[in-house]
Amino acid sequence: MTVAAQRTTKTIDLGNAVELVSKEEGHRQPLAPEFVSLEDFSPLEVAYDFPKLRREDIEAGPRSIWRYKQLLPVPSNVEEHPNTDPGCTRLIRADNLAKALGVKRIWVKDDTGNPTHSFKDRVVAVALAAAREFGFKVLACPSTGNLANAVAAAAARAGWDSVVLVPKSLERAKILMSAVYDGSLLAVDGNYDDVNRLATELAGEHEDWAFVNVNVRPYYSEGSKTLAFEVAEQLGWRIPEQIVVPIASGSQLTKVYKGFNELGETGLVEPSPVRIFGAQATGCSPVSTAFKNGHDVVQPVRPDTIARSLAIGAPADGPYVLDIVRKTNGAIEDVTDDEVREGIKLLAKTEGIFAETAGGVTVATAKKLIEAGKIDPDAETVLLITGDGLKTLDAVQDQIGPKATVAPTTEAVNAALGL
Amino acid sequence: MTVAAQRTTKTIDLGNAVELVSKEEGHRQPLAPEFVSLEDFSPLEVAYDFPKLRREDIEAGPRSIWRYKQLLPVPSNVEEHPNTDPGCTRLIRADNLAKALGVKRIWVKDDTGNPTHSFKDRVVAVALAAAREFGFKVLACPSTGNLANAVAAAAARAGWDSVVLVPKSLERAKILMSAVYDGSLLAVDGNYDDVNRLATELAGEHEDWAFVNVNVRPYYSEGSKTLAFEVAEQLGWRIPEQIVVPIASGSQLTKVYKGFNELGETGLVEPSPVRIFGAQATGCSPVSTAFKNGHDVVQPVRPDTIARSLAIGAPADGPYVLDIVRKTNGAIEDVTDDEVREGIKLLAKTEGIFAETAGGVTVATAKKLIEAGKIDPDAETVLLITGDGLKTLDAVQDQIGPKATVAPTTEAVNAALGL
Repeated sequence: MTVAAQRTTKTIDLGNAVELVSKEEGHRQPLAPEFVSLEDFSPLEVAYDFPKLRREDIEAGPRSIWRYKQLLPVPSNVEEHPNTDPGCTRLIRADNLAKALGVKRIWVKDDTGNPTHSFKDRVVAVALAAAREFGFKVLACPSTGNLANAVAAAAARAGWDSVVLVPKSLERAKILMSAVYDGSLLAVDGNYDDVNRLATELAGEHEDWAFVNVNVRPYYSEGSKTLAFEVAEQLGWRIPEQIVVPIASGSQLTKVYKGFNELGETGLVEPSPVRIFGAQATGCSPVSTAFKNGHDVVQPVRPDTIARSLAIGAPADGPYVLDIVRKTNGAIEDVTDDEVREGIKLLAKTEGIFAETAGGVTVATAKKLIEAGKIDPDAETVLLITGDGLKTLDAVQDQIGPKATVAPTTEAVNAALGL
Repeated sequence: MTVAAQRTTKTIDLGNAVELVSKEEGHRQPLAPEFVSLEDFSPLEVAYDFPKLRREDIEAGPRSIWRYKQLLPVPSNVEEHPNTDPGCTRLIRADNLAKALGVKRIWVKDDTGNPTHSFKDRVVAVALAAAREFGFKVLACPSTGNLANAVAAAAARAGWDSVVLVPKSLERAKILMSAVYDGSLLAVDGNYDDVNRLATELAGEHEDWAFVNVNVRPYYSEGSKTLAFEVAEQLGWRIPEQIVVPIASGSQLTKVYKGFNELGETGLVEPSPVRIFGAQATGCSPVSTAFKNGHDVVQPVRPDTIARSLAIGAPADGPYVLDIVRKTNGAIEDVTDDEVREGIKLLAKTEGIFAETAGGVTVATAKKLIEAGKIDPDAETVLLITGDGLKTLDAVQDQIGPKATVAPTTEAVNAALGL
């Protein structure tokens, strides 16, 4: 039986997910591995029929994103299949950082603790679960790095083949960490836009390949909601007052907002306003530029920044990001590569967390928004740190290192430390 | 008031820890920042007066090693001080790996999920808590890398100064990850033995410096027990049948054993036998050599292996490791650097976990012990994966990489994959 035939005969169990709905005009269609509405050509999003949910059921669940399975498009037995069990990362109260930035309270959500050390493990786990249900056999993606790591690892763990496409110029750590899991890693002679276009073509050709961020994107992207779910649960089941989210395609920001809303809808938290702030690198800041110019659409740019995991010049969810940020009374700002490096160092020095460049963008943008009076210093702020500094060592290597190289004597050590 | 004076006047609260006891002859002395008995010159270890403990109290505790604070030498309010909150890492059932190795059931404890991606975050967190109680002001260590990362990060988060001494030849990732937290990182012109000796001298000179693995070592090393506690809790409050532990100084292996025993003593688990296996790299295998030769003492060696985090030529706890392995009916084996690389790749390919060289040692040793019939294939086995592959990329970089570099066309991709 072909995959397509299997899809039409098998009953799809994706939990409380009931259909797909187009983001622009709300056209509804059955759950399927499709990502664009043929009615209005807007992205498709998963719609649910949620039962009333209880905090104690979630708290009694697994220590992974699967504790929130009732809020995700995954089968009810999802945790029984081998997967990387991502999520339940630390939310730390960052008083040192708050003091350095002159605000009352900051929380840092540290997604470097995920299995491959970025938030991508969340979205890939959800994509894999949905892809399994749809009968796909190969997990695939175009990626700038973190997604490649997460897809290759998740496929290995699940016993699936993987096809991972990356620009050949990718950082060494991300290349090696994608290769080690022994799937089919291909370096593509082109930039990320080329790789992305290639993936879309391949998804059309290979009916058993699930490109997590292409043909199963509606399911994949729902995984980002778990950041909101965890933040709220870790705060004692409440929605934070302000949150700063990095923007690449913009998907994460829209899903964090959706996640907070769904917690309210299902009765898990008391609904309360959250101001959502977006962070970009100046070298790839199309959404920030549109926000500042008061535009509703985003003009694509050619990326040039050390924050490569955010370097998407034509962000698919840009317009939705602008809408959410405006209606929640947030703001979007961008920071230079030097500020990104300073952001990485500030977070490391104050809280002992070594973030990748995207985390530097988030911290530096928060600093800029605080200084501009846009983030309220008396309200609490959550910063999403989505990836790990070990993957972007090149970005900081010229700025950090040992204080000194010394002979192995106490005199030499004391002299080096000025003691 | 000097630190020494403060130590004598202040009541020390280290929870249920009551005194230090010498490992050889059991001489007892008050809790203090000391590490060698002046009675018999053997290492000092923490002794406790445990109350009866209840599983439900632990299960209701924080999602970090502090859930086990009643079993650690830390103050009862330990989690209220800023710390990195390590622990509660994944224990995954590794059926793909078990199949590859021809055994019934393997569990992998994945400590790459810790804040700085190694088990050292556990021991450093306990050392910091005890050091704070003793009135120290600076957190310090000699290190081959993982400990440097953990100390620098923990000190930053706690708002302490740090002094971290590393051999100048250390891997780039470990140097940069130690430097980014902005403590005093010093590269020492010498090998690890030189650095270690230097640390002992400095600990004598600077009374407010807590060298985590020197003058507060008895507290520090207790942190490794949390690996045993978590494994047992994650298995549903029971002790595994077999466990493979990498050996550097040997401390971790002895503390894992102590941890399992304490769970039995406090009524948290039903006592049951565990066979403890030790893993070394052949290029630094003094304990394995002693084991195979039937010796009780360990002859120091000059290390020469890619598994640098295990490269301690004169392992302090070697004799205790031999004793424990023999009395639990375990074994110790060592593996070549090529086998280490194969071990890293096997774990990545089967379970999606990218371990550092020490993890490769553990996996490859398990394989060798299984093939030799020493590990029982019908009993379950836990493998401790203590550190992260991103920190030892050099070890595998010549062996892994993209399958191919291709033009951005579907034809090129299909051709590269033989489709």
